Amino acid sequence: MKMSEGVEWAAHVCVLLHWLEAGDTAPVPAARLAEAYDLPAPYLVKQLQALTRAGITESVPGVRGGVRLARPADRISLMDVVTAIEGRSEAFSCTEIRQRGMNAERPARDFAKPCGIAHAMRSAELAWRRQLAATTIADLSASTPSTVAQHARRHFSSA
Amino acid sequence: MKMSEGVEWAAHVCVLLHWLEAGDTAPVPAARLAEAYDLPAPYLVKQLQALTRAGITESVPGVRGGVRLARPADRISLMDVVTAIEGRSEAFSCTEIRQRGMNAERPARDFAKPCGIAHAMRSAELAWRRQLAATTIADLSASTPSTVAQHARRHFSSA
Ligand code: FES
Ligand code: FES
Repeated sequence: MKMSEGVEWAAHVCVLLHWLEAGDTAPVPAARLAEAYDLPAPYLVKQLQALTRAGITESVPGVRGGVRLARPADRISLMDVVTAIEGRSEAFSCTEIRQRGMNAERPARDFAKPCGIAHAMRSAELAWRRQLAATTIADLSASTPSTVAQHARRHFSSA
Repeated sequence: MKMSEGVEWAAHVCVLLHWLEAGDTAPVPAARLAEAYDLPAPYLVKQLQALTRAGITESVPGVRGGVRLARPADRISLMDVVTAIEGRSEAFSCTEIRQRGMNAERPARDFAKPCGIAHAMRSAELAWRRQLAATTIADLSASTPSTVAQHARRHFSSA
């Protein structure tokens, strides 16, 4: 069970865009974002498109255009970013194997309650989602040494 | 991010083996376990091998041999089963992109603390693992209607 590396990229790009807003250097062209973390630009563009579809980033057209956050960083959670990149579907999917084979002829009422295994897997995923939902891009930005944020601003303003 | 369907199979097989122990019909040949849930036997055998490597099931040789639980069902958690099938590695892996590109020349001390994003992803996974670790095969067995467990015992004793 692996998350795509795009999640790491997208989360870092969101934090970076938040820093750049504070320094008035957003929007930023996707190619410069890619260069900032040494990422392959075409693949990063795909992640940015996913973030934009999810309403996390937006694309500003024009010569001074580029990408910027579409809403305040304290209203973008890590869950939002993960969902934008990985999709909404749960990691565990129940195919109702309990109703097959030896149980194919059992009455439906035996399976009226959700399967305990599926239920336990879902609660665990919910615990995971809750934690991710409790952390925002603003929190993540605040937990980074300020020298790193300053350096990013300088890097982008010296374009 | 998808878990393999083998997790659903393995969890159900563990609960089933626990029921069969109570009815004194374990060990059970892998082919009969596959038939019980209408699963492809060769692929189920792979999951059983993974469970055995993890010390969750064991294989009893001989004519009346087969598979059985290797320890009490209240000492096998859903986390154990997931880890046996999916491996130990975390879903999110950090490739330290924060140290690349514009930060490649930054002093190491700026990165002494783990990245906040990686840290948040890890805590969320830990919450998920904790929940799975809190649910045992014995719990899951207890939450199934007893008619289903009885039916399974009858099915296997009429071999
Ligand atoms: S039937 Fe799907 S997890 Fe039980
Ligand atoms: S450097 Fe990997 S998540 Fe931040």
